[in-house]
Amino acid sequence: MPRINTAFARLSPSYLFSEIASRVRAAQEGHPERPVISLGIGDVSQPLVPAVLEALHKATDEMGSAATFRGYGPEQGYAFLREAILAHDFTARGIALDADEIFISDGAKSDIGNFQELFAQDAVIAVTDPVYPVYVDSNAMSDRCGECADGRWSRILYLPCTAENGFEPDLPDGRPDVIYLCSPNNPTGTVLSRKALERWVDYARENEAFILFDAAYESFIADPGQPRSIYEIEGADEVAVEFRSFSKTAGFTGLRCGYAVVPRKLKAPAGSGMMSLHDMWFRRQSTKYNGCPYIVQRAAEAVFSPAGQAQIGHVLNIYRSTAAVMRQRLAAMGLRVFGGVHSPYVWVQTPGGMKSWDLFDLLLHEAAVVCTPGSGFGASGEGYVRMTAFNSRENTLAALERMSAVL
Amino acid sequence: MPRINTAFARLSPSYLFSEIASRVRAAQEGHPERPVISLGIGDVSQPLVPAVLEALHKATDEMGSAATFRGYGPEQGYAFLREAILAHDFTARGIALDADEIFISDGAKSDIGNFQELFAQDAVIAVTDPVYPVYVDSNAMSDRCGECADGRWSRILYLPCTAENGFEPDLPDGRPDVIYLCSPNNPTGTVLSRKALERWVDYARENEAFILFDAAYESFIADPGQPRSIYEIEGADEVAVEFRSFSKTAGFTGLRCGYAVVPRKLKAPAGSGMMSLHDMWFRRQSTKYNGCPYIVQRAAEAVFSPAGQAQIGHVLNIYRSTAAVMRQRLAAMGLRVFGGVHSPYVWVQTPGGMKSWDLFDLLLHEAAVVCTPGSGFGASGEGYVRMTAFNSRENTLAALERMSAVL
Repeated sequence: MPRINTAFARLSPSYLFSEIASRVRAAQEGHPERPVISLGIGDVSQPLVPAVLEALHKATDEMGSAATFRGYGPEQGYAFLREAILAHDFTARGIALDADEIFISDGAKSDIGNFQELFAQDAVIAVTDPVYPVYVDSNAMSDRCGECADGRWSRILYLPCTAENGFEPDLPDGRPDVIYLCSPNNPTGTVLSRKALERWVDYARENEAFILFDAAYESFIADPGQPRSIYEIEGADEVAVEFRSFSKTAGFTGLRCGYAVVPRKLKAPAGSGMMSLHDMWFRRQSTKYNGCPYIVQRAAEAVFSPAGQAQIGHVLNIYRSTAAVMRQRLAAMGLRVFGGVHSPYVWVQTPGGMKSWDLFDLLLHEAAVVCTPGSGFGASGEGYVRMTAFNSRENTLAALERMSAVL
Repeated sequence: MPRINTAFARLSPSYLFSEIASRVRAAQEGHPERPVISLGIGDVSQPLVPAVLEALHKATDEMGSAATFRGYGPEQGYAFLREAILAHDFTARGIALDADEIFISDGAKSDIGNFQELFAQDAVIAVTDPVYPVYVDSNAMSDRCGECADGRWSRILYLPCTAENGFEPDLPDGRPDVIYLCSPNNPTGTVLSRKALERWVDYARENEAFILFDAAYESFIADPGQPRSIYEIEGADEVAVEFRSFSKTAGFTGLRCGYAVVPRKLKAPAGSGMMSLHDMWFRRQSTKYNGCPYIVQRAAEAVFSPAGQAQIGHVLNIYRSTAAVMRQRLAAMGLRVFGGVHSPYVWVQTPGGMKSWDLFDLLLHEAAVVCTPGSGFGASGEGYVRMTAFNSRENTLAALERMSAVL
């Protein structure tokens, strides 16, 4: 019989969001008269902004004429977009990088899921707990995580983040090769301070580990003194890869564009010499990927125009003020609430030590409201649920109203 | 030091097309007065057809209104596109499949590059030689191929395809777990007959191997009796995965859309039970990929409309007639020419036993024409070059004129 990758058989049977979707479908079919309101999956609801739409139409027209048609693009993405990202997201914040260190992709999920291919099979990864499931599952598919029992893999170093430690992970006990950090955090909605980031960069440099820094939610950071990129920390460009996305920044969840920053200084031994992670990622991407659509790269470029910035700023403020209302109303129901200030995610402790999935089922069946069970993000997420500020103000207020009737 | 994937160090230093691009850049910079004409990389030149442009504009407008905005799509792709593909590409040809067995993606290159993740580390792959480099390199990155010497990996079964065997590979000597087949073939432009396909399907069933069938060029098949899908062969749905693309069919190289067909019948042992490749691929894609843009899926759907079909038919005929002219003129120069009938690729034997890269350099420097060296596709490609019919008629005629002056 053909030999297949049996590591897949050790994965939990279903991806968290697929499981939620299937429970929601069943509940909705049972009660078609009351539409379920989702504060669950982190998907945006506001339409694309006019500057982005205009760029899409214009680039589409270019694709209709032989003189301006674009086929395969440059493997790393078009220079016009890499330069715009460099200027706006890095140079403007005093960060020295090169446009050549930026790789455009179809989204941060793909990049983060694929990046583990660059590490050895026996590399040890460390993840905060709770954690975005893609970090763990992508490594488990590569058979890097050992055995799974009670939701914990034997070869992963877990760094618990709970109310007790203020959601700031302790340094690991063992020695990881790769540390996944996400700030503003998915799912807890909390943010790592400059001091905490410095501690991690110093740790990675001293212990010769790489940091994979997921900054997909950086546009929600409200405090101007808070770092928005890990490269604002000295020495980070020797140890850290950063992942960014237009999904939450500019509503691109259905349009698909993100980017990875892989500085040239990131190196590790291979055979008799040193290999550059930048060169490895370039090779990986040019072999297994063919670039983000030209029209989408033009749309992403438009996000950085003055009009684009003003328009997405307006949309981000809608989500931010929804998050503020959620925090307030949930607290008024007597719940302990975290996150939601520098993040679209509100992390809610379940009342009376209830299990995450029990609160999920209660809210789904009694209030027709969808949240995400914290335990789906890891053992330390048990006893919490995640709610997002991405639904419309109207729907969110209705959901809060329904919840206050059952909680 | 962090442990990285040292298999990358064993890859040849550069992806074939990157190497070509860098030689071409250097040659063009040396002679800016004579623009190089590329018959090299297989990129289309005709603009997107009106039906596709119209669908892109319409879907873009939908993304601009909250009522019709689409965020994250279904993991496998939208049903409207999977149903259109099923009806047009399969049901219409008498093939029984389910829309749920079709997975929409950003292109066949990504799918083929990623699909090897589903096989065991010690799985043995068989490839025809010459071969599209992605099959080999993606497996080599997963450290599945052993050591590389003189362009040959120790754990790969190579199946030579040359003028001597009419470009029909013999069955392998060893026992492969996975067989990569591509028809119409990239790079040779030749096509596997129904009989040859039957032989491979029978072999795979008897020997319990999987076939990964790359049908990216099926729209170029001119003979109505020739299978366009491997599922036209009985039993193929028990052993074969098929990869398709809108890139060459409808000029989507810069728009990015393709699909994989993974029938539910494909199974292999894992632990105490059997695992379905369909479920594994669903899990892989929903964990590491977030779907093809909604607007691009609408564009792909438009390819199947009556207007879309007529319009792409016209474009395909342009490329077909260019291929016919190339065949004729190259033969008139005394060259042995293969392919180019059911394919946009013409496979040309070098004159006088010249090496592939030597003919490449000669044509680049003396004629300012770019081809692709056959040896870049594998040892049995030595002594050939690949030329494509994707450039404009005008440019192609000019290139042929230039070539006839130096050959």
